[in-house]
Amino acid sequence: MRRFGQALGIRTECIDVYRQHHAKIWPEIERAIRDSGIRNYSIFLRGDQLFGYYEYHGPDDEFDTRMDTLANAPRMREWWDVMEAMQIPDPARTPGSWWSDMEEVFHQD
Amino acid sequence: MRRFGQALGIRTECIDVYRQHHAKIWPEIERAIRDSGIRNYSIFLRGDQLFGYYEYHGPDDEFDTRMDTLANAPRMREWWDVMEAMQIPDPARTPGSWWSDMEEVFHQD
Repeated sequence: MRRFGQALGIRTECIDVYRQHHAKIWPEIERAIRDSGIRNYSIFLRGDQLFGYYEYHGPDDEFDTRMDTLANAPRMREWWDVMEAMQIPDPARTPGSWWSDMEEVFHQD
Repeated sequence: MRRFGQALGIRTECIDVYRQHHAKIWPEIERAIRDSGIRNYSIFLRGDQLFGYYEYHGPDDEFDTRMDTLANAPRMREWWDVMEAMQIPDPARTPGSWWSDMEEVFHQD
């Protein structure tokens, strides 16, 4: 299992709409996330900061392929367009990414 | 089960020492966390920001008591003194807390 922690900014004027979208995400997106092997996915908010936590429970050697399939799932680009208009990515993020991966400095099962 | 997402600042000059402490936390602290019912506890770092994620798997009506026991566990105050000297709490946090609770805006099992 691989754990991920990711950070992203949000436009404070968009928070209500962002909350509403995430209270009931589109069924296509929910299914695509599930099919990818991602589990226990939470997004937390404080001020203008989002934090995402999720776990990848699929086979290790399928990770890249599954993330590719997820990115190309039905309506995913449309979902991201709606989300990205509300978010403020870190200019120093990894090229090609949107959320910024954080470093895991501690873990206890 | 209750999930928690928490934010806290860190003094960038202390990051190496913070990492070292968390690569192998004191056995008393590890045990106290386990005894409290906290599971799947991760701390992530990016820049001067820490994000903590953990789950409380104990009985709901024992939560307050167990968190109290955790706070008073052997060497906990000593551990916190070492940690807090490296951290920068949000001035707008809840009185009596150190980490700032974030709002869960999304979850998918």
